[in-house]
Amino acid sequence: MRYADRMENLTASEIRELLKVTNRPEIISFAGGLPAAELFPIEEMAAASTAVLKNQGEQALQYSTTEGVFPLREWIAQRENNRIGTQLTAENILITHGSQQALDLVGKLLINKSDVILCESPTYLSALNVFKTFEGKILEVQTDQEGMIVSDLENLLATTADVKLIYVIPTFQNPSGKTWSLERKQQVLEIANRYDVAIIEDAPYEEPRYSGELTPPMFSFPKAENVIRTGSFSKVLCPGLRIGWISADAAVIEKLVLIKQSTDLQSNTFAQMQIFQFLQANSIDDHIAKLVKTYRLRRDAAISAIETYFPKNTQYTYPEGGLFIWLELPEEINTTELLEKSLDRKVAFVSGESFYAENPKLNTLRLNFSCMDEARIEAGMKILGGLIAEELAMQK
Amino acid sequence: MRYADRMENLTASEIRELLKVTNRPEIISFAGGLPAAELFPIEEMAAASTAVLKNQGEQALQYSTTEGVFPLREWIAQRENNRIGTQLTAENILITHGSQQALDLVGKLLINKSDVILCESPTYLSALNVFKTFEGKILEVQTDQEGMIVSDLENLLATTADVKLIYVIPTFQNPSGKTWSLERKQQVLEIANRYDVAIIEDAPYEEPRYSGELTPPMFSFPKAENVIRTGSFSKVLCPGLRIGWISADAAVIEKLVLIKQSTDLQSNTFAQMQIFQFLQANSIDDHIAKLVKTYRLRRDAAISAIETYFPKNTQYTYPEGGLFIWLELPEEINTTELLEKSLDRKVAFVSGESFYAENPKLNTLRLNFSCMDEARIEAGMKILGGLIAEELAMQK
Repeated sequence: MRYADRMENLTASEIRELLKVTNRPEIISFAGGLPAAELFPIEEMAAASTAVLKNQGEQALQYSTTEGVFPLREWIAQRENNRIGTQLTAENILITHGSQQALDLVGKLLINKSDVILCESPTYLSALNVFKTFEGKILEVQTDQEGMIVSDLENLLATTADVKLIYVIPTFQNPSGKTWSLERKQQVLEIANRYDVAIIEDAPYEEPRYSGELTPPMFSFPKAENVIRTGSFSKVLCPGLRIGWISADAAVIEKLVLIKQSTDLQSNTFAQMQIFQFLQANSIDDHIAKLVKTYRLRRDAAISAIETYFPKNTQYTYPEGGLFIWLELPEEINTTELLEKSLDRKVAFVSGESFYAENPKLNTLRLNFSCMDEARIEAGMKILGGLIAEELAMQK
Repeated sequence: MRYADRMENLTASEIRELLKVTNRPEIISFAGGLPAAELFPIEEMAAASTAVLKNQGEQALQYSTTEGVFPLREWIAQRENNRIGTQLTAENILITHGSQQALDLVGKLLINKSDVILCESPTYLSALNVFKTFEGKILEVQTDQEGMIVSDLENLLATTADVKLIYVIPTFQNPSGKTWSLERKQQVLEIANRYDVAIIEDAPYEEPRYSGELTPPMFSFPKAENVIRTGSFSKVLCPGLRIGWISADAAVIEKLVLIKQSTDLQSNTFAQMQIFQFLQANSIDDHIAKLVKTYRLRRDAAISAIETYFPKNTQYTYPEGGLFIWLELPEEINTTELLEKSLDRKVAFVSGESFYAENPKLNTLRLNFSCMDEARIEAGMKILGGLIAEELAMQK
């Protein structure tokens, strides 16, 4: 079969390949981005399913509109307004098949072959793959603790033709766990507007948050017409139902609806109604508060284990929310090689290499802490720390 | 915002725009392709939901593999083997978010900008939109009662550069309701192989069938490595859950998995398990038998009303299955204009124009008969027939 040219750029996601191995119960896996399944509100979701099928069964199993189920769109608009001070209505919301599909739809909307996409370094690797399927060219902007370094961004924009899009995850970034400063968001939006470049503000991780407060997203600023924001129920409720959304100007949503029509007609009607019913019958804030309580302990256990078992010159982020810690090990360590040995000892993580569009730092790795208890985190980190110490000793 | 070039080719699906109007209960709508909601096995689906959430709740709400839930893939492979004589395993099946997504994924796999796609005339309009999003160039092949006319196909292949794909719906075609002959399928596959062109054999309508028997699909022939087949639970169970699939060579499925990873990570875990549970606890064949009984009466009522109320020189297909009848009215009638007047009288249909890639026949229309009872079909057809008679009288 003669494939399209884009297939040359597509490679398997190391994480999803890894997940096949790490599903085995004997593996302590820091690799995925799985929420804690034991915290899923299973009984409440079962009650929601039953209620929807009993009261609106025909509607729930039938085709519905491409835009999404109206009351769910209204609910999301209202919640965004309450959280980030926007004035959205349902017209600003498109329901998507998870926030990964949001990236695919926006990619289709914006990217011509050879258009340039600027992203953080490191960044979410499955976003890179989306942009590659549209044959975009991805360039990385250097980052510090506050977000993209504006001089590097300005420089790239001034010297690069056909920049179409800036892709950022300003809160609890995947993979780094970092959060942007408010000032940096203001600067980046101002620069993007000056160059007439759109921004995807990918925001699937804003909740749960363990400390600190959300500073306003770029999408909520004045003159944010070029900002497209994504969200998801995956991290606050459950990922298996694949319900996310895009928030954008109504005119942009109209275009995205056309794209979604041809892409998959619509999202799952039942899943949308099931989530809406859950939200009517339960407090999502109470549920998120439960997640915060558990995840905070796990984050703290992971941080404490890094301090106990890892080399003293290890650098790591201290995330105020989200699911990930990012580590820079001593430069002698290549984490892709480390991973093979680590799997032999039944501990998994993701080496940092896959998260870079251009120049990987080979001594980096991403740790997920959300899906196991503190004892297991401690046990896994002890093994990993021991392995790193052995590696360093061997290299001396 | 600066959109990608592909947006210039994308227009709203007339059908989905229409559906917004035709949802109103006072409209008799032959427009959509909705299955009969009153036949959805709601109680059985509720029982399946409850069982899945009770017994495997954590798994059902969690991330799962891109390929799809394994036992469902196995079930589909086995059913295909029983129905069409293939020797598939789960490795040949990718679960998709409805068969519309199957077209999107295959489009991404194959189509470069300016590649040519050959399709039937008329054909499924949302397939045309998919191919347009990948900036493919669509050419139509003339058809008769047996399928594509092979001399026209050969001629196009011999004279057109960069033909990548032939898109066909050989059984109960949308919009025409036609079914291809076995011989025509053999000829088209032989020609496609000779020119090294892939075939999408889109097969969401094979069941329910009211009379006659399925002749083997191209996918089941020897030397069918270049054939990619799609299927769906939308017409035999319910469309709201958006579960379809692609059957193909394992090597092709592997490539499609890469694409689906970046497109939306995976299909809804819960919906897949819910359907699998339904299939374990119930006989899908018994359910399809119920559909056949009801839909056959509706088809017959629609055909009988055409004969009673429509002009004598109306041509129409007599579908052995599926959801659609295709009509060619006397040449004086423009069905797009007719539709406006028809909506004033609270009857909806889809004018044929939207189903042509190149040269529309303006006197054609598509009637769906699956989603209302015989009395309503008769009432709607009487109104429509009366309107057509008035139009013809006025034009004399």
